[in-house]
Amino acid sequence: MDTSKALGGVQSRVFKRIAITVLAFTLSAGIMVALFTYAPEKHLQRISNAVGIPFKAWPIPQCGGFIGSNEIWEASQTKYQHLRDDKFTIAMQTYRRPKELNDTLHALLAEKIPSLQEVVVVWNDLENAPPPNYKSKYGVPVRYRHSKENSLNQKLLPDPAYETQAIFLSDDDIYFKPRDLEFVFQSWRKFGRRRMTGGFTRCAVREANGKWKYSFCSKDEGHNNYNMILSGLAFAHISFLDYYSSQDEIPKKIRAYVDEHFNCEDIAMNFLTSLLTGEGPLLVKGKDPYVSFVPTNGISTKPGHIEARSKCINDYNDMFKCMPLIDETAHIEPGVIIS
Amino acid sequence: MDTSKALGGVQSRVFKRIAITVLAFTLSAGIMVALFTYAPEKHLQRISNAVGIPFKAWPIPQCGGFIGSNEIWEASQTKYQHLRDDKFTIAMQTYRRPKELNDTLHALLAEKIPSLQEVVVVWNDLENAPPPNYKSKYGVPVRYRHSKENSLNQKLLPDPAYETQAIFLSDDDIYFKPRDLEFVFQSWRKFGRRRMTGGFTRCAVREANGKWKYSFCSKDEGHNNYNMILSGLAFAHISFLDYYSSQDEIPKKIRAYVDEHFNCEDIAMNFLTSLLTGEGPLLVKGKDPYVSFVPTNGISTKPGHIEARSKCINDYNDMFKCMPLIDETAHIEPGVIIS
Repeated sequence: MDTSKALGGVQSRVFKRIAITVLAFTLSAGIMVALFTYAPEKHLQRISNAVGIPFKAWPIPQCGGFIGSNEIWEASQTKYQHLRDDKFTIAMQTYRRPKELNDTLHALLAEKIPSLQEVVVVWNDLENAPPPNYKSKYGVPVRYRHSKENSLNQKLLPDPAYETQAIFLSDDDIYFKPRDLEFVFQSWRKFGRRRMTGGFTRCAVREANGKWKYSFCSKDEGHNNYNMILSGLAFAHISFLDYYSSQDEIPKKIRAYVDEHFNCEDIAMNFLTSLLTGEGPLLVKGKDPYVSFVPTNGISTKPGHIEARSKCINDYNDMFKCMPLIDETAHIEPGVIIS
Repeated sequence: MDTSKALGGVQSRVFKRIAITVLAFTLSAGIMVALFTYAPEKHLQRISNAVGIPFKAWPIPQCGGFIGSNEIWEASQTKYQHLRDDKFTIAMQTYRRPKELNDTLHALLAEKIPSLQEVVVVWNDLENAPPPNYKSKYGVPVRYRHSKENSLNQKLLPDPAYETQAIFLSDDDIYFKPRDLEFVFQSWRKFGRRRMTGGFTRCAVREANGKWKYSFCSKDEGHNNYNMILSGLAFAHISFLDYYSSQDEIPKKIRAYVDEHFNCEDIAMNFLTSLLTGEGPLLVKGKDPYVSFVPTNGISTKPGHIEARSKCINDYNDMFKCMPLIDETAHIEPGVIIS
């Protein structure tokens, strides 16, 4: 046996091992850098909102004569604790407005939204089948869910296929620009998990006669606050959707009311969320204003809109036997202030 | 015995009882109305930040090679749970600037601040005795605490006489206007309990050579965030002060460092708070800008200030064996946005 050859074989094996080791290190380092670079803001640091604090369901707080089932509400909280809280799902309701829907989907999916897990289009057109599901160019699944009935309650269903705790409730004619949507989600994670957290506010204001009136809020001295964030552009925790869709007395009455009037599911979500948490809603402003198509066929432009909405507030007030809405005086804006 | 007289006695006793009962009810109703009217914003609704969720101490999260005592940190958390969280204490540090101190106290005490429990002036002038304690015209006690040493650590002592969980750390030359201070406190309660929550930001920025640099932050694209709120104008939970002042290894080293350099206790508070919570600081803007006297005798106007502060950051980074500061991209502003 030629020892120099054998030695050459050993040397080449040693060289191969070194080369493979170096290659493996380089690849690992590359992958780590890539992971850190592409990881959405703070995800590595904040898997949970409350470092080390274990989840615990809480009972329904006292509010006037409201009676609800603690068992149902505690089940709504416990059921979704295994879902991830570092990504979110868009639940977008649509009804025969293909142009608006496509424009909105296109705007949302044209850029990368780091924490977007899935888009679910709640297709309320019973007669026409939705288009097939697809994946966006950034790999986000777009799933059309054909509703069993044309009901505003469909958007608020806690879809058993949802994979995230955060659900972004939206309509087909309004959207945050992608980087702002990511910012609003991060604000929900940090500050708004127990709130309706989103882009536009409305107010229930008590009038001199004791009745409640729906309004667009006011910046006047002594007001300059808000007590509702509408679900056309808002994050909600899936537990609140679950309780809204539950068999508890009040949620059942609410859903029947919403179907009867084809209105006010968003007001009801604010009533329920504030009732269950004792907190107000949370307004978040993006870097850019949100984009809204002029609604040509939407329900909020009909004459008598304010009156109908005021009636909902007063009817819910009677139904709940309490006014759970809470005035919030603060809101979130992006960036730093230099001083 | 005259039965009519006896009957008259009974009637007058019955009448007296009715009168007393009516009077008692009226008084109770009056007191209740008064209590509800004068209760500061939301206090009745939000005794706790987390409705029904019991307090649970959490361990120190992982951060690089940082080693701390979970027992000490858990004790720091548990010790103050009995203190009220719906009021706050001002801890104002002063050293031989009677004009600034008096102007600041006057501005703060001239208007009612509903949630202000007590003002503690941390009197760091060892040679001259402080003036006597007094009560403001709105009944707020002003207590002078004569420091045992002229140390920047004195402001961060968890005074055993404190009655509140929220401590507003401040200096004698800077203040929020009263209604803004109340707003910042309410923002701390709702969003910032686990953060340094206050009025002005600073940044630790990593340079190309791997060293950290102290800066006034930047609104440039890709930055526009902050990772410190200075303790000249900031709320901190008393548990963080307790850990800062504890016998754990790193806090002891920090206090010695602060005394040696007469600087950087505020940077240290940001390091510790973000280390213990995994959260960034929180900037809150009031309706008006905060008021700041031009510092004539303060340490932050000395030449070499930026370099000295940068050195602190790098030294703490070595001491902690990790960089716990977390970039925050959001801040709080007052009021509603109409849309």
